[in-house]
Amino acid sequence: MRILGIDPGTNIIGWGIIEKLENKKIIPIAYSSIIIGKKNSFGEKLEIIFDNLNKIVSVYKPNIAAVEELFFVNNIKTGISVSHARGVILLALKKMNIETFEYKPLEIKQAVAGYGRADKKQVQAMVKNILKLSEVPKPDDTADALAVALCHESSMKLKKILLKK
Amino acid sequence: MRILGIDPGTNIIGWGIIEKLENKKIIPIAYSSIIIGKKNSFGEKLEIIFDNLNKIVSVYKPNIAAVEELFFVNNIKTGISVSHARGVILLALKKMNIETFEYKPLEIKQAVAGYGRADKKQVQAMVKNILKLSEVPKPDDTADALAVALCHESSMKLKKILLKK
Repeated sequence: MRILGIDPGTNIIGWGIIEKLENKKIIPIAYSSIIIGKKNSFGEKLEIIFDNLNKIVSVYKPNIAAVEELFFVNNIKTGISVSHARGVILLALKKMNIETFEYKPLEIKQAVAGYGRADKKQVQAMVKNILKLSEVPKPDDTADALAVALCHESSMKLKKILLKK
Repeated sequence: MRILGIDPGTNIIGWGIIEKLENKKIIPIAYSSIIIGKKNSFGEKLEIIFDNLNKIVSVYKPNIAAVEELFFVNNIKTGISVSHARGVILLALKKMNIETFEYKPLEIKQAVAGYGRADKKQVQAMVKNILKLSEVPKPDDTADALAVALCHESSMKLKKILLKK
C-alpha cells in the first residue's frame, strides 16, 4: 500500500509517498515539495498545485492520501489563503479517486514522535529515523508531508489492533 | 460582454450572468444557485462545485468573472470551509481561461446600492430594479451573485470614466 502525505501551503506544498512492504517494513518511495514562484497570480498558483498533484499521482500511483488539517490561531489571512490551496488539493485527489484522510497537527506529532507536544525538529528527526534516511528532507514541508503519511500508516495499524481486540 | 458573478459558499454557490448590450442596456442572461446536499462528503462538494461551474461556463460562455471576496470576523470555521470552495471556484475559472476579478462585500454594496452600509434587502431590491426582474431571485445567494456581476460592470464603467479624464 502506497500512502501520499501532503503538507498544504500556498507557496510551498510538501508531499511524500511511503510504502508498506509485505514484511511490514516502511520505505520512502519519493518525496519533495511543489515550490511556487511568489510572482504567480493566485489563480496560477492554484493551477500549479492542481497540475503538479495530478502528475505526482499519475507517476507514483498512491492508493491513499493523508492531508494535514489546518490549525492556526495567529494568522487568519494565512489560514484563508492556505484553505484555498487545500480546497484545490482535496479536489485533485477526489478527481483522481484517491481516498483521502485528514489529520490534525497534534495527531501527526503524537503518531510520529510519540507525543502531541513534540517540536518540529523532533518530528523531523523521527521521520528520518523511521524511513532510514541519511538526512532530514528539505524543505521542512517535505519532511512534514512524510510525517503526515507516517501518521496515516500508524493510525491504520492502530485501527487494525483495535479491531482485533 | 458577458459577466459571470459568483457568491461563494460550501453548500450554496450563487451565480448569475449579465450582458451589456451595445445600447448600454444591461440584461440578465441566466442566474441560479448550485445547491449541494449536506450529506455529500467535503471532497464530493468540491467536485460538484467544480463540475457545475464548468457546465455553466460552457453553456453561457461568459467573458469575465467576478467573485466575492471573503469577509468574516465571527466564524473562522465557516471562513475556512468557504475558502476551500473558493479555491476550487478560482481554479475552475483559471482552467477555463476566464479572467477573474475579486470584490469585497463593501465594494459590491457601494456599487449596486450606492453606499457600503446598505443592507442585504436593499442590495437585492436594486438588483431586481437594475435588471428589471419581476421579483428578487431566490435563494439570496443568486441575487448576491448578480450583485457581484453588476459591481464588476459598474467598476469597469468607472475605470473607463477615469481613463477619459
